[in-house]
Amino acid sequence: MEPDKLTIEQAAARIKPWLHNTPVLTNSAINRMFHTEIFFKCENFQKAGAFKSRGATNAVFQLTKNELIRGVATHSSGNHAAALALAAARRGARAYIVMPENSNKLKVKAVLEYGGIITFCEPTLKAREDTLAEIVEKTGAVEIHPYNDYRIIAGQATAAMELLSEYPDLEIIMAPVGGGGLLSGTALAAHYFGHNIKVIAAEPAGANDAYRSFYGGSFVPSESPKTIADGLLTSLGPLTYPIIKKYVDQIVTVSEDGIREAMQLIWERMKIIIEPSSAVPLAAILEKKVDIADKKTGIILSGGNVDLTALPFK
Amino acid sequence: MEPDKLTIEQAAARIKPWLHNTPVLTNSAINRMFHTEIFFKCENFQKAGAFKSRGATNAVFQLTKNELIRGVATHSSGNHAAALALAAARRGARAYIVMPENSNKLKVKAVLEYGGIITFCEPTLKAREDTLAEIVEKTGAVEIHPYNDYRIIAGQATAAMELLSEYPDLEIIMAPVGGGGLLSGTALAAHYFGHNIKVIAAEPAGANDAYRSFYGGSFVPSESPKTIADGLLTSLGPLTYPIIKKYVDQIVTVSEDGIREAMQLIWERMKIIIEPSSAVPLAAILEKKVDIADKKTGIILSGGNVDLTALPFK
Repeated sequence: MEPDKLTIEQAAARIKPWLHNTPVLTNSAINRMFHTEIFFKCENFQKAGAFKSRGATNAVFQLTKNELIRGVATHSSGNHAAALALAAARRGARAYIVMPENSNKLKVKAVLEYGGIITFCEPTLKAREDTLAEIVEKTGAVEIHPYNDYRIIAGQATAAMELLSEYPDLEIIMAPVGGGGLLSGTALAAHYFGHNIKVIAAEPAGANDAYRSFYGGSFVPSESPKTIADGLLTSLGPLTYPIIKKYVDQIVTVSEDGIREAMQLIWERMKIIIEPSSAVPLAAILEKKVDIADKKTGIILSGGNVDLTALPFK
Repeated sequence: MEPDKLTIEQAAARIKPWLHNTPVLTNSAINRMFHTEIFFKCENFQKAGAFKSRGATNAVFQLTKNELIRGVATHSSGNHAAALALAAARRGARAYIVMPENSNKLKVKAVLEYGGIITFCEPTLKAREDTLAEIVEKTGAVEIHPYNDYRIIAGQATAAMELLSEYPDLEIIMAPVGGGGLLSGTALAAHYFGHNIKVIAAEPAGANDAYRSFYGGSFVPSESPKTIADGLLTSLGPLTYPIIKKYVDQIVTVSEDGIREAMQLIWERMKIIIEPSSAVPLAAILEKKVDIADKKTGIILSGGNVDLTALPFK
């Protein structure tokens, strides 16, 4: 059953000893530029550098000692991998991580540092799923899906819950959408903890399955998505799609140049490091896909894990 | 007369309405790495992106309306230029800024945004001084030197004063040294607001005039200094040198590779943007020039204005 208010509050209490209540930042130059106040929830400062630690910690800490004996497993090219490895390490459990061989070096390094056991595979969904199935079969580890799991969704919801507890009068809340774990959690939190708040998702035009699924009326996965927002390549899942359909008000798409420009604006003005996926909501504002003038707006900055030797700035 | 306790407290009160009491951040991975707690005072989040706003604001807000009628003037390739332009704008005064024609684009953009009137000159100290003298002669503007001015020193001291009011039990405080405005202010603040605290400065080996002056016993300026820490190319001045000689415990030098590595460590782990100059104290710790194990250490991160299209990471 989709997480309700109590489930999200329980998730927040469960993860609290292990994670940061991340800061909310504002920037006067950016506010002037868009004629309103924007409140950035900085999940780039979260443990393991992304909101993914919330869901992974919430899932792993619900497993019994017995369930954890054989470890946990997932496939992920990115932040969920590191988040799961860290959460598992805190419970003294093994984490088996299947990663495509072209994964970002920084993310591979993070998984290894947290003690994750990596198996590399070809960078296709089929290879990832097949390799994971083999590992689960061999080890008996518990699979923790990066987003298609209500424990994960409830965990991700705690970011918006924290933001709304600090700024209860937000009129708009925005999040990027990839697999939809963050977005469905954000929408649920807005429903339970917001007051007349509009939920707007932003998605790269080159990976627009959520946009097409939301407005087309039925679930369509991405086919060969392409975007610099490497956290948003995945498609919605059977658990995230219905929540998004029910609680999200609007989904807009943005260009790659918009993402780059919004990312640079945040780096230059706010002096914080965010990954391209985090810049997608501000890109929607920059490209005038969304009008937030005079509306207090919250934006979830999803993460800050970016390869500093391969930046997209021009 | 060198700023005393009251002068620094007055500076803090004077600039408070205009500037940020910047956050102090810690990072568990970095703490583990160096076996202690490091408290980073984040002046990269300061107005105009650097501690320089403290001194410039303290100086400009002590001028009378009459003194401001003809504006203020300085020569600076960097953060002092933007800081002075912003402080002047807030008093409705003109700011004449002489900048070498090879200045960092981001810094030129910032000066223009704050309404500064730029005159470009050749990138030599002589050309800068001559051009400034001409402008002051022509306009009657009040010159505000970037560091060789007690009002500036008192302003810069407020960063360490804030850090020590939040963490009064720091055992070591570190700052980078260029012209010595930040370092002399930091050392005075440590003297007046710290308790048995050691003041350690870090300087690029390629611009080591402070190191040579401090240990050589007399003031020697830099000759053709060279470092990626572009905020630290200047030499100590006749007002900063005696304060440093009197209140600083130790000056160490670091390599360019050390600066690069420390900068990358902060970017990757803390997800914040700092300029190379800010990384110099951590470089000294990385290169084992300073032993901070088990000693609570404060570090002033001086600024975050860096050209994102020309980063030094490898």
